[in-house]
Amino acid sequence: VASALVQRVEVFRLATAGPGDASGLAALLDSGDIRADEVVAILGKTEGNGGVNDFTRGYATFACEALLAERLGVSRAEVGKRAALVMSGGTEGIMSPHLTVFARRAVDDGPAGGEHPGEKRLAVGVAATRDFLPEEIGRAAMIDETAAGVRDAMRDAGIDDPRNVHFVQIKCPLLTSERMDDARRRGQTLVTEDTYKSMGYSRGASALGVAVALGEVDRGRIDDDAVCHDWSLFSSVASTSAGVELLNNEIIVMGNSPGSASDLVIGHAVMRDAIDGAGVRAALHSAGIVAGVAVTTEDALRIVNVLAKAEADPTGFVRGRRHTMLNDSDITSTRHARAAVAAVIASIVGDPMVYVSGGAEHQGPAGGGPIAVIVRA
Amino acid sequence: VASALVQRVEVFRLATAGPGDASGLAALLDSGDIRADEVVAILGKTEGNGGVNDFTRGYATFACEALLAERLGVSRAEVGKRAALVMSGGTEGIMSPHLTVFARRAVDDGPAGGEHPGEKRLAVGVAATRDFLPEEIGRAAMIDETAAGVRDAMRDAGIDDPRNVHFVQIKCPLLTSERMDDARRRGQTLVTEDTYKSMGYSRGASALGVAVALGEVDRGRIDDDAVCHDWSLFSSVASTSAGVELLNNEIIVMGNSPGSASDLVIGHAVMRDAIDGAGVRAALHSAGIVAGVAVTTEDALRIVNVLAKAEADPTGFVRGRRHTMLNDSDITSTRHARAAVAAVIASIVGDPMVYVSGGAEHQGPAGGGPIAVIVRA
Amino acid sequence: VASALVQRVEVFRLATAGPGDASGLAALLDSGDIRADEVVAILGKTEGNGGVNDFTRGYATFACEALLAERLGVSRAEVGKRAALVMSGGTEGIMSPHLTVFARRAVDDGPAGGEHPGEKRLAVGVAATRDFLPEEIGRAAMIDETAAGVRDAMRDAGIDDPRNVHFVQIKCPLLTSERMDDARRRGQTLVTEDTYKSMGYSRGASALGVAVALGEVDRGRIDDDAVCHDWSLFSSVASTSAGVELLNNEIIVMGNSPGSASDLVIGHAVMRDAIDGAGVRAALHSAGIVAGVAVTTEDALRIVNVLAKAEADPTGFVRGRRHTMLNDSDITSTRHARAAVAAVIASIVGDPMVYVSGGAEHQGPAGGGPIAVIVRA
Amino acid sequence: VASALVQRVEVFRLATAGPGDASGLAALLDSGDIRADEVVAILGKTEGNGGVNDFTRGYATFACEALLAERLGVSRAEVGKRAALVMSGGTEGIMSPHLTVFARRAVDDGPAGGEHPGEKRLAVGVAATRDFLPEEIGRAAMIDETAAGVRDAMRDAGIDDPRNVHFVQIKCPLLTSERMDDARRRGQTLVTEDTYKSMGYSRGASALGVAVALGEVDRGRIDDDAVCHDWSLFSSVASTSAGVELLNNEIIVMGNSPGSASDLVIGHAVMRDAIDGAGVRAALHSAGIVAGVAVTTEDALRIVNVLAKAEADPTGFVRGRRHTMLNDSDITSTRHARAAVAAVIASIVGDPMVYVSGGAEHQGPAGGGPIAVIVRA
Repeated sequence: VASALVQRVEVFRLATAGPGDASGLAALLDSGDIRADEVVAILGKTEGNGGVNDFTRGYATFACEALLAERLGVSRAEVGKRAALVMSGGTEGIMSPHLTVFARRAVDDGPAGGEHPGEKRLAVGVAATRDFLPEEIGRAAMIDETAAGVRDAMRDAGIDDPRNVHFVQIKCPLLTSERMDDARRRGQTLVTEDTYKSMGYSRGASALGVAVALGEVDRGRIDDDAVCHDWSLFSSVASTSAGVELLNNEIIVMGNSPGSASDLVIGHAVMRDAIDGAGVRAALHSAGIVAGVAVTTEDALRIVNVLAKAEADPTGFVRGRRHTMLNDSDITSTRHARAAVAAVIASIVGDPMVYVSGGAEHQGPAGGGPIAVIVRA
Repeated sequence: VASALVQRVEVFRLATAGPGDASGLAALLDSGDIRADEVVAILGKTEGNGGVNDFTRGYATFACEALLAERLGVSRAEVGKRAALVMSGGTEGIMSPHLTVFARRAVDDGPAGGEHPGEKRLAVGVAATRDFLPEEIGRAAMIDETAAGVRDAMRDAGIDDPRNVHFVQIKCPLLTSERMDDARRRGQTLVTEDTYKSMGYSRGASALGVAVALGEVDRGRIDDDAVCHDWSLFSSVASTSAGVELLNNEIIVMGNSPGSASDLVIGHAVMRDAIDGAGVRAALHSAGIVAGVAVTTEDALRIVNVLAKAEADPTGFVRGRRHTMLNDSDITSTRHARAAVAAVIASIVGDPMVYVSGGAEHQGPAGGGPIAVIVRA
Repeated sequence: VASALVQRVEVFRLATAGPGDASGLAALLDSGDIRADEVVAILGKTEGNGGVNDFTRGYATFACEALLAERLGVSRAEVGKRAALVMSGGTEGIMSPHLTVFARRAVDDGPAGGEHPGEKRLAVGVAATRDFLPEEIGRAAMIDETAAGVRDAMRDAGIDDPRNVHFVQIKCPLLTSERMDDARRRGQTLVTEDTYKSMGYSRGASALGVAVALGEVDRGRIDDDAVCHDWSLFSSVASTSAGVELLNNEIIVMGNSPGSASDLVIGHAVMRDAIDGAGVRAALHSAGIVAGVAVTTEDALRIVNVLAKAEADPTGFVRGRRHTMLNDSDITSTRHARAAVAAVIASIVGDPMVYVSGGAEHQGPAGGGPIAVIVRA
Repeated sequence: VASALVQRVEVFRLATAGPGDASGLAALLDSGDIRADEVVAILGKTEGNGGVNDFTRGYATFACEALLAERLGVSRAEVGKRAALVMSGGTEGIMSPHLTVFARRAVDDGPAGGEHPGEKRLAVGVAATRDFLPEEIGRAAMIDETAAGVRDAMRDAGIDDPRNVHFVQIKCPLLTSERMDDARRRGQTLVTEDTYKSMGYSRGASALGVAVALGEVDRGRIDDDAVCHDWSLFSSVASTSAGVELLNNEIIVMGNSPGSASDLVIGHAVMRDAIDGAGVRAALHSAGIVAGVAVTTEDALRIVNVLAKAEADPTGFVRGRRHTMLNDSDITSTRHARAAVAAVIASIVGDPMVYVSGGAEHQGPAGGGPIAVIVRA
């Protein structure tokens, strides 16, 4: 039997000293562990407010792109086309800022169908939609373009079966005063006139796009009013993050594929609410780690990262108790939610360097969110 | 054998709809379950920022005092002398605002030395120091006056052995611009000229006063520079909370006493850091509840409240990972820490209505804090 | 000619040491300058965030009501019916917290038609609407009920001609998580599902109610979508302030009346934008003070208070320059706007103890707001 | 008489769309108006919080340096050595984010001693100190190194007489958790253990360095405790801004020199407090513009920028009225102060695009600050 080229994905979690710190990535490239042209995606947690004016996302993107541009001998804009850089702002509470770098290379799968015959291993695919007009954000056009993009990214990952998709990270745009003015000048209405709130609509519509692509929600059930209103519609693997620094959606699909030669696997589950430790343990279990009260030291070393979404329960209650996140005019509710969820996860995996992103509209059940774990197999 | 009068303590956890909401307390009084003159202490979590300008503490105190004053037919000031009202601001993340009301009455201990012969049950005692001058806050005078006050409160609780003390809640003052001006006009220096930071010094000196009273720290080891500097000195049961609305320290000692006829017991442990789930489980165990991954539904119903302290690790790291709480100029570090610790506790006890107070200077080890649990025996 | 009873209004500006400080009001009552039953309205600036969770408003109301209840021998609820207490949260920048107390008494107008024949002097009237349902907030019912209430308050003030109305202060409700849940349970939709944003809708609809009552805007021009969208519709004298502590609108009309025996007059103008010093001077001029670069020391002593509204320009620009207030997820735009407008006014009147309230939806032109001045004649 | 080479300074104020926006600078270079190697300094107002975790400063610096590096064909680090880039975070209230670019070239002074014989025109000089150790920040070493640096920058500007210096902008470092840990590991004490507070000490010591260099304060009067305590010691032209992105002081001296061929002049005055409109007018007058109630449209066009410092009055009072800036745990006092001072200046010059930097420790009198104006002569 002739061998064939298959993908092998490596994932590195790199601590950062600040949003402009790409030194960990530089070291990784310098060491020869990966090459700049193998970097297919970077997921970052940056220490901003995660809101409209969180420029730490753009700064981190700028710094990483500048570094990769230099190494690849191309422009920063060209880097942006080659690799999906998704920075999620907000490291509230104990969460620790870091970058997760995904490198992908084509390798020979060897005799007998690969090193891990019969096993599905981590595969990654990326795609990008066209730029959205301000009036499209949070609406049908965004849902449909995103769904098409997710299917593109699955093809790029070599994943056919939606059940093998365990996390879909999307970076999506938001409305600023300037963008809203532009739409109004053209006589268009907007889904909201509140910049902060536009982040939720953008995340919500993007997540519904994932749900449609993966068959989690029937497209016919989503009418125009459903976005950010009908919380019964959701994806269990979507993770969407809004940022001011782009106008289109960048999509990263993560899953397990029999055609992957990676040493890693990914699993996922859903946290029903912000304090759902059982959901955290289910995600670990899905990736092959059985956690008791906490993960063992041995298993902890196998965990590459935990990726989760958090949000303030829109009912105003968690387990029947009133919370104050939605009535707080000093701190946005996403900041509260990230602080809580990250702490619960960290208390189980014993590590505060986890990726918890805020605003889980249509991402997992209302008040909860998807959680994925990447581990060394 | 002649019977004798012993104390019986009842504790009620009451949800609030806002800082001015004393309706739960009114209902409790209306029901006849307790009488207004039996209320010995109220511990509240109010939904403010927990900082210098957190007026939700004063508001909640005002509302409770106004209600009790009306029921008792005395002035609000007189209520303040009869009962210790300690409001801790900040219900970040999933934490739910509430009041914990401690009522104490003298009951006949019955034949054979009480209903619970040989068992130690919850006892509570209160005391208050004199008013502090601004220049005394955070310094030796505060430590020594507090230590004396803790001993008074132990006597009031009928607890002799410091080992039976499981939680000492103190409300202490802070420096405002006006108070600092007053000291400067009299030619006095202050421990700090930063109002927010003064809260930490006040909490720290008060906690060291507890440690001295209970023999946890030798008074001779505490020199003037130790407050908020030498983190090796701490109490494992002190919980101190600074507020703008008072000038002295109000002290509530909670412990178990053979001379108590309560149906409740209290236990405690220490959280080593903000994600120390093992510390939470140790506290539960100390109070007689064995928690696995989470508390059982049956045991959850026995828990009256969990009382804990939280702080951002002063080293800037949790489990070797950099946190950003101390460099955040938008959100104070105590807010971050409360959000994290409350979520960890809630994920184990299955209930977000817990009491987590921020600023654990000299309360538990650096970066961690004491945690106590009151349960139905 | 027989004399008749006419109203005489006295206005006192009282510095506060905190939101719970009613000691200035107590001193005023103790001095005999006014009697508790003469207090018809209190306008306060309290040091909260002016947002959904600004409990300083409720606290100040509670403290003033408790004092007046004690002096009048009635319940706090009864005080709330007798006097309109409107607290506006937010003393950003140099603004200084204070209460403005309006006392009104019936006096004999003396021979020849009063002390000030031919002159119009300050008159005040109050009214209240019924409670609003959550789904009515920000919509037609609120506009119409408010318009009716303004006419009631004009009658109470003895002002017939709308041109003699110079300031209409309204306290209006907002949507909380709980209130939104209530409406949803009854199958009702809401004008917004964002608590902070609901404050704007409530202020906007209430201001349009004033505009309708005074003939500034034709009711037929206001369709359902106009609230917080068609900024060409506005009142030049409305000042509306949303708070969590009530469900109806409390209305205070201030104007000049020939039937007033007051020693005070009121004037007003409009600030076109946040830095419109000419608007400040026009308001002073309307009240009889000619201000050059700044008000003279002599004239400054005549000023009882300046009452103004502030908002972030909804276009995102001031004088063609981009501002960042609407994109700020750390500080709400109303806080920014109050800080700016209060400083501009204070720099002209030479006094930081002015009343600038945030959120000027349909109050003055977009980005600007009404400004009134009460002076000793 | 033979002609000689003299400096000619051009200053451009460029609106930015965000902290990473260097497009205005690119356009300026593309137009040929200035060359990249002529850029001697860039002063920016960026839309961050101006606090410890304000990364908009670093981002703007990164973006400008990346652009200049590309144009000059050198590394970003090399750009940092050639030009002083000082970004001041915080555009509260109406302030509009922008860059002020200073370009300097050597020109022939022409016959008769220049184009402007007998007139002093704008001259600029730059210098940098060595890196400071964490324990030196806010202390004597910082004062003395800064004083030496200011003298270097004066020489670079060709200004001998301190009276011709009208503004000295300094970018100085601050303490982070990491830097404090470093000092503690080496057994060193720090001037403060509060990161936010360290910004004040750094700004204060740097300002005293300016005062020493210019003879405003006698070095012998400054003992170790004076920094941030003895407010009678100050410079009337120092403007210091702390940022996390550097460890040394970068110094820009601006003044008028007979040896300058610029078309611009600079003047300055002092604002006594945050609402001192007279101080604003004095600064305009010093630069040759007579302002009445507001600057005329004609004069407004001559103004290139206004540079000022703001701070919350450390007494807690402005004009005898209590302010709440220093007791606010939600918003730092520098943010409040910038919002107020920028609005007052903008209301007089009719333009919100001004440079107001927060934290005026030892820069102007307590509660006030220096203000300079650059105008076309």
